[in-house]
Amino acid sequence: MTAPGTIRGVGLGPGDPDLMSVRADRLVRSARNVAFFRKAGRPGRARAIVAGLLSEDAREIAMEYPVTTEIPLSDPAYNACLSGFYTEQTGRLRALAEAGEDVVVLCEGDPFFYGSFMHLHDRLLGHVPVEVVPAITGMSAAWTATGRPMTWGDDLLSVVMGTLPEAELVRAMLNADALVVMKVGRNLPKIRAALAQAGRADRAVLVQYASMEGQKVTPLTEAEDGPAPYFSIVVVHGEGRRP
Amino acid sequence: MTAPGTIRGVGLGPGDPDLMSVRADRLVRSARNVAFFRKAGRPGRARAIVAGLLSEDAREIAMEYPVTTEIPLSDPAYNACLSGFYTEQTGRLRALAEAGEDVVVLCEGDPFFYGSFMHLHDRLLGHVPVEVVPAITGMSAAWTATGRPMTWGDDLLSVVMGTLPEAELVRAMLNADALVVMKVGRNLPKIRAALAQAGRADRAVLVQYASMEGQKVTPLTEAEDGPAPYFSIVVVHGEGRRP
Ligand SMILES: C[S@@+](CC[C@H](N)C(=O)[O-])C[C@H]1O[C@@H](n2cnc3c(N)ncnc32)[C@H](O)[C@@H]1O
Ligand SMILES: C[S@@+](CC[C@H](N)C(=O)[O-])C[C@H]1O[C@@H](n2cnc3c(N)ncnc32)[C@H](O)[C@@H]1O
Repeated sequence: MTAPGTIRGVGLGPGDPDLMSVRADRLVRSARNVAFFRKAGRPGRARAIVAGLLSEDAREIAMEYPVTTEIPLSDPAYNACLSGFYTEQTGRLRALAEAGEDVVVLCEGDPFFYGSFMHLHDRLLGHVPVEVVPAITGMSAAWTATGRPMTWGDDLLSVVMGTLPEAELVRAMLNADALVVMKVGRNLPKIRAALAQAGRADRAVLVQYASMEGQKVTPLTEAEDGPAPYFSIVVVHGEGRRP
Repeated sequence: MTAPGTIRGVGLGPGDPDLMSVRADRLVRSARNVAFFRKAGRPGRARAIVAGLLSEDAREIAMEYPVTTEIPLSDPAYNACLSGFYTEQTGRLRALAEAGEDVVVLCEGDPFFYGSFMHLHDRLLGHVPVEVVPAITGMSAAWTATGRPMTWGDDLLSVVMGTLPEAELVRAMLNADALVVMKVGRNLPKIRAALAQAGRADRAVLVQYASMEGQKVTPLTEAEDGPAPYFSIVVVHGEGRRP
């Protein structure tokens, strides 16, 4: 029997390949099997980060999300559809591992921090060897891009998803000293309204494409109305004790 | 006039040199001036991470914390003492930069995330060029070490400092889905009590020395009483929506 290969969820960091870890860089360059999620017809966001790093004979395994825009997120059919998709992709990777092949799964940012790889990880565990390589998060790149420290002393930092209902956003904002809002995109107007209600709008900063081409840092009060790109984060810096 | 050098706060990540970014690795190996904080008589925690990476002719600038254990944290004299120290060290680095020298300041984890470099950064800004290289945080290494994903779907993640009063810890814990407690050390008994009050004690995991020699992951219910090492983090995983 062949010894099984290992499936590695490899965090690539926020986008600049220079911010990949030494370990991720080595794993990606030497990988024989490279898997990544993408929308049908798109190059794939994680795949784009490693453009130019993959070895020429690497086998690429594109895991294409089923088109889900017609099903609302709240519909149980949405979850069922995604669940089937993850199970199917898990099967592909597991078959490779069982045939003795190591597989690198490319992950944006840190794999265990709101990452898609987690859905594969859950399904692979106990069947084939799985490893995870942590990475720099998008939020670290975002606050670094603002040029100002994020959290001081005893500051409480909360990370909230812009997909939450407005009232929950407000509550989270009121309870935190420093704040990160992810999944901004089409939720920007709602996030803006919540920040205003929580009295934080003046201090909020919108960071688009942190560490990527097109990086842009704008005080939220000066940002355009309407949706922001997928790679957008809103930060409110802490102002805690500082000697 | 000499063009001024640049002072770079370089995040080294959680401890394993293999988890440094490609950029940090390059900057550290080629640095001519390497500054780092340490307690008097100790090798320095950030300095230890890069043991073996520094070039032989690198000038090392140890910034030794004044002995402060006699002054309680709440005493204004504590802040005054630290403030004087940071101002003094800023002067040393600034003098080097003004003489045209680049300086790498070694930082544990991500520099802008509860980092000591922030106190230098504040004082250097506007005087000499300053840059920051983000890094993998200690908490990313900690949740990776648990082998389980940290945040799902719309989970709210809060990061709290174990130095907070117990009642504030409880409140923060009740408001969050996923939780990271840093600055654990001598605060472990208080953190444990707060987690119990918030009904989270059963799900809490203590991670010591994440990604370092001696890494240890223990369910909090099975962890010893008494203080934990400086490099300790308590995590409570989120349990949000997952297809
Ligand atoms: C599904 S989450 C994945 C987070 C990722 N695992 C991480 O560690 O940052 C996607 C969200 O992360 C944020 N994000 C990730 N990288 C970013 C970047 N470089 N610039 C701006 N936002 C980013 C955006 O808010 C985006 O909606
Ligand atoms: C002053 S904060 C610095 C945080 C750092 N800048 C970061 O990004 O992780 C120090 C605290 O970070 C946590 N920490 C940092 N690295 C760690 C590691 N490798 N393992 C466990 N805890 C760590 C501990 O809770 C420690 O008390």
